[in-house]
Amino acid sequence: MDEPVLLTGAVGRVGQAILRHIGTDYEWRLLDRAPMSSSKRPEGIDADDIYIGDVTDADDVREAIDGCRAVVHLAGDPRPEAPWDSVLQNNIDGTQTMFEAAVEAGVEKFAFASSNHAVGAYETESRTPDLYRPDDDYRLDGTEPPRPTNLYGVSKATGEVLGRYYHDHHGLSVVNVRIGNLTEGHPPIDYERGQAMWLSYRDCAHLFERCLLADYDYETIYGISDNDRKYYSIEGAREALGYDPQDNSAEWDGDDHVDGER
Amino acid sequence: MDEPVLLTGAVGRVGQAILRHIGTDYEWRLLDRAPMSSSKRPEGIDADDIYIGDVTDADDVREAIDGCRAVVHLAGDPRPEAPWDSVLQNNIDGTQTMFEAAVEAGVEKFAFASSNHAVGAYETESRTPDLYRPDDDYRLDGTEPPRPTNLYGVSKATGEVLGRYYHDHHGLSVVNVRIGNLTEGHPPIDYERGQAMWLSYRDCAHLFERCLLADYDYETIYGISDNDRKYYSIEGAREALGYDPQDNSAEWDGDDHVDGER
Repeated sequence: MDEPVLLTGAVGRVGQAILRHIGTDYEWRLLDRAPMSSSKRPEGIDADDIYIGDVTDADDVREAIDGCRAVVHLAGDPRPEAPWDSVLQNNIDGTQTMFEAAVEAGVEKFAFASSNHAVGAYETESRTPDLYRPDDDYRLDGTEPPRPTNLYGVSKATGEVLGRYYHDHHGLSVVNVRIGNLTEGHPPIDYERGQAMWLSYRDCAHLFERCLLADYDYETIYGISDNDRKYYSIEGAREALGYDPQDNSAEWDGDDHVDGER
Repeated sequence: MDEPVLLTGAVGRVGQAILRHIGTDYEWRLLDRAPMSSSKRPEGIDADDIYIGDVTDADDVREAIDGCRAVVHLAGDPRPEAPWDSVLQNNIDGTQTMFEAAVEAGVEKFAFASSNHAVGAYETESRTPDLYRPDDDYRLDGTEPPRPTNLYGVSKATGEVLGRYYHDHHGLSVVNVRIGNLTEGHPPIDYERGQAMWLSYRDCAHLFERCLLADYDYETIYGISDNDRKYYSIEGAREALGYDPQDNSAEWDGDDHVDGER
């Protein structure tokens, strides 16, 4: 892919994971609301490739997206407890603005950062905590309709539906990545749910790289590592994108933490 | 049901169908943006029961909903071609405001007017026009995820997800009615699609009455008459709500139009 890839929300954890691992492999453009501190600006990104603007501002987005072949849209209010007015504006309106501009600019692929919070209410009392354990075979696979945990999750589910519309009517390839629990270095400790949906930084970067390289129409997949504990299937990501995760939260269980570059 | 039922958007066609047939059977409260002309105000509704206000204004909604046991939420921009800004505000934000107020007021049942436009993109080129014909057995049944035809349809799909959240987290009984093609008197003429998704006025009123009377948790059902041509299943509405439609667009096909009170 020679044309630039627009990445929104690069200062967040997902953006940092992506840029740290594949920041020098693509020609990135970054769109963020505030100027990026030098510590967050990765190697290989020129100051000229950083656009300051808001994803809810169509003009800002148009300027940044012009000439891009693909979009990785991460920007938005990332707080599960975010109030409605904020997710309505930043996540729902912002995502529609991004899709509209992507179609106008002739973008081919659009990876949307959805969330486990779009489906968190499948974790009913009767299913938990068994759900989080390695011997439980319950799986969500991306074909199930959303059951949001909060209004943030509602906003992510709406982004997925927007993608469906822009795919069906404008031919854009869209992949919704329902991101699990992304933590740097090691999985969450003493938190079974977080271990079950752990996504390592390198698997995260690899997954979004597959979103740039694979051929797909409209997909909703789960973004987690290949954890022994899991209730999200990664088969959809394997099949649709060629995702091949390297990490597993079980390798960190107990006392025998595995060392290695992560 | 002795407590009042709040009906938003009563001046639209769905509201008129409901009030014409069951307007005197319940204690209705109406919430509308503009004062209602006397021709639209049905018999049996006191001027005191008509609240002027906007569904996006939490204070307006709180005043109207206080003491209500059930809500029939029809208000919103009804135009399939409505621009994003309008559906974002009137349909998405307005529906969230309604749900929030309903929970706060202790409402038990919430019927949401969704739309065939939330799933219109299932009507692909390869399926049409066979889909619209009596001998085709393709059915949407309400378990399929949305595939909106337009941004209006995206807004309706978002209303459905909001209902999922408010049901899961606040115990509200929610039914999404994906309304077909509601026309007064007779089905659309020379329009197979409209005949396949025809909803007569009396079936419409009966369906929303079942939404007030039946016991349900969270349901997404199709609102059409019992048409010979159909690609929406009405089994979900029959089972969840006890819907028992009386009309069928086939009775109007060709030259032998059936007369009768409709």
